[in-house]
Amino acid sequence: MSELDTLIQLLAKLPGLGPRSARRAALFLVKRREQVMQPLAAAMNAAAISIRPCSACGNLDTADPCAICRDPERDPAAICVVEDLADLWALERTGAFRGRYHVLGGNLSALDGVGPDELNIEKLIARLGPNSELILALNATVEGQTTAHYIAERAATTGARISRLAQGVPIGGELDYLDEGTLTAALKARREV
Amino acid sequence: MSELDTLIQLLAKLPGLGPRSARRAALFLVKRREQVMQPLAAAMNAAAISIRPCSACGNLDTADPCAICRDPERDPAAICVVEDLADLWALERTGAFRGRYHVLGGNLSALDGVGPDELNIEKLIARLGPNSELILALNATVEGQTTAHYIAERAATTGARISRLAQGVPIGGELDYLDEGTLTAALKARREV
Repeated sequence: MSELDTLIQLLAKLPGLGPRSARRAALFLVKRREQVMQPLAAAMNAAAISIRPCSACGNLDTADPCAICRDPERDPAAICVVEDLADLWALERTGAFRGRYHVLGGNLSALDGVGPDELNIEKLIARLGPNSELILALNATVEGQTTAHYIAERAATTGARISRLAQGVPIGGELDYLDEGTLTAALKARREV
Repeated sequence: MSELDTLIQLLAKLPGLGPRSARRAALFLVKRREQVMQPLAAAMNAAAISIRPCSACGNLDTADPCAICRDPERDPAAICVVEDLADLWALERTGAFRGRYHVLGGNLSALDGVGPDELNIEKLIARLGPNSELILALNATVEGQTTAHYIAERAATTGARISRLAQGVPIGGELDYLDEGTLTAALKARREV
């Protein structure tokens, strides 16, 4: 059964699939070879060949520059910095942002040996000018906030306006279940109604 | 981003992956194209070409008859009936059974229109003789037990000995968390120590 074992081992590497669910997925694929397995293999090969990072912003797309950087409807002066492509996708699903992005590819982390040179920061600074708006959409974790702080300091010399995502109570969130830090931030940033 | 969207849509069909985890998996694959994505695509293509059902027992393997049916060390007279390949794998991981298997490919279900002809039952009856032992390892659900009952009735004419998996308290199970049916079965089948 070596072909099946190879398939299971590779599937188990995917995030969200453990050994048990990888076996279930392999069984599912083998039973649906025409409908799912072969199209999925073809989609992977197509993606491996055609998808590349955008040289401007780090987004992944089949074209370089990517569809967002090429879109004339999107404001080139507003640049939203995100850690990862998944964050870019999350923001795009809101449809609330009509500027462009910059994907760092990680956070500064002394522990993991990630310094400013490992991230896509120099290119970001080069994109900024006195008319730019830089929106820091980094995770509200220690690493994310350290990275945001570093970028804000570097970007200050460019004259760009710098903002960050608001912190507060999530929509639908119950105060009882929120941590003290979020509640404190929500109190400090309270708005008149 | 159509290649990426196709990949995400196909990944979301796998059991255990929803839309969100399919996006994460696609991102993971695109970032590791040499290490994971291309090997996984190749493994799927290899499996699609080489894996077929065993004509004797219904197991999936690269050879027909399968490695279990070909193994001269395994008792051909002991046949363990399972619903699905996943159940066969689960039993094989125990290493406790040295006979052969018969994979039904489902359960009898009037609701889903699955009758005896849709399952691999005729071939099973043909494999049985007066010296055979038939072990019913079907799920302890209504459908599984209905199927077991039907097979036991059909197999009675062959003269084979028929047994089924013991029911009782799982190893490590706490009585407090067990349902009444399991506890009743465990009480009825109590053994002297």
